[in-house]
Amino acid sequence: MGSPLRILVSNDDGIDAPGIYALAMELKKVADVTVVAPDKQQSAVGHAITMNYPLRAVPFHKNNELFGYAVEGTPADAVKLGVGFLMKEKPDMVLSGINHGSNTAINIIYSGTVSAATEGTILGIPSIAVSLTTYQEADFSYAAKFAARLALLVAERGLPERTLLNVNVPALPEDQIRGIQVTRQGRSTWADTFDVRRDPANREYFWLSGRMNVIDTEPDTDQVAIRNGYISVTPVHYDLPDRGLVARMQGWGLASLK
Amino acid sequence: MGSPLRILVSNDDGIDAPGIYALAMELKKVADVTVVAPDKQQSAVGHAITMNYPLRAVPFHKNNELFGYAVEGTPADAVKLGVGFLMKEKPDMVLSGINHGSNTAINIIYSGTVSAATEGTILGIPSIAVSLTTYQEADFSYAAKFAARLALLVAERGLPERTLLNVNVPALPEDQIRGIQVTRQGRSTWADTFDVRRDPANREYFWLSGRMNVIDTEPDTDQVAIRNGYISVTPVHYDLPDRGLVARMQGWGLASLK
Repeated sequence: MGSPLRILVSNDDGIDAPGIYALAMELKKVADVTVVAPDKQQSAVGHAITMNYPLRAVPFHKNNELFGYAVEGTPADAVKLGVGFLMKEKPDMVLSGINHGSNTAINIIYSGTVSAATEGTILGIPSIAVSLTTYQEADFSYAAKFAARLALLVAERGLPERTLLNVNVPALPEDQIRGIQVTRQGRSTWADTFDVRRDPANREYFWLSGRMNVIDTEPDTDQVAIRNGYISVTPVHYDLPDRGLVARMQGWGLASLK
Repeated sequence: MGSPLRILVSNDDGIDAPGIYALAMELKKVADVTVVAPDKQQSAVGHAITMNYPLRAVPFHKNNELFGYAVEGTPADAVKLGVGFLMKEKPDMVLSGINHGSNTAINIIYSGTVSAATEGTILGIPSIAVSLTTYQEADFSYAAKFAARLALLVAERGLPERTLLNVNVPALPEDQIRGIQVTRQGRSTWADTFDVRRDPANREYFWLSGRMNVIDTEPDTDQVAIRNGYISVTPVHYDLPDRGLVARMQGWGLASLK
């Protein structure tokens, strides 16, 4: 092996989250790691970028050592700033996570963790998003080890243009994880509900809540794989056109609308 | 025709922008329109939703009439709140726009205008995002008329699941618009640059800027269609898995990573 793999690590839980610490420490054993991450929790920010406000990046220390750069912005901002300014050379790979909570099915569209990896792919860098499927107290160590092994395999194999890997690791003891499945994004979506309340001045406000409407039953979906105790690896593709519809729309008589 | 088409109108430029006013007024001639939109400019918010803060929606008046509801949140929040709470019945269609500025190529991923339409499709509602391709003073009237005609055609034809139409109308006098093309998303991306400055306390900060690296030359791409004076209609599809890679990854030997 020549010069070590250069990896940019980011997340959406914020630079002081335990998941990014576990991931960065594990990757440092095999790669040259630069951490650039939001300074605070940025869940469900989607693929937001900051254009109307200035960005700041300050060194962030952990255990009296420089851990990385904390960006006052979104996960996509952090990756853009890391690649475009803070790192001397373009990284070979972007890893995002480890998110505290799963990112499967429709959540891929809302996820800040996935968004950091998406920005990596937009910048032409193979990228992986990693999540641990629990909202409880969590041990990120096995997920971090798996992510590091997968990063080395991806370095070897490459990824197609505009494609990232979205990884969900079940929050199980290592010996209960049954294996690894390559999956597709599930079809489950949220059943939104709005909790209507009144503030002290009697003005109405709303909390978005709801529950995941789990409709996936096929074993090759991300949702079912993790439920069955497998690590789910989903290739996610950002070439968005619906080519079938492009062809069918030729028969719609659009010209008459002008 | 039975009961009129129920259309939810949103945008990312904010409820007081001229583009959403032109769109809503034109749609009101043919449909039952409810406007629910962010209370202020929300460009480049991607598909963000607000879960950690309460949402508010207040009636917004224009010309002494109720125009719609202003939501302290993102475009996706506005659509969720409109469909899930403010409208008595689920709308038949979501229209987002008219954005002041184009949304083509990679910008589809960052666009708040497209995000409102994406949220519509997630909720199972045929959705259309409309943009006018200028950042100068603009006349939205022709784009609004075209959007209304297209909405009626889509009501008749329907759209596949998880697919929206992303429309860009050239900012040209009506008689100079050459026609309508069904296109695919271009491949052009941004060449990011960061403008590094110092604040009065001598702390470094950054402005994200950059220019679109226009690489598209094929006439069937959104970028080239509008450059040639055509209205661009791009079917955008949110079924993200890369099925080709799923198949190829079976040969990667992932099992050995556990």
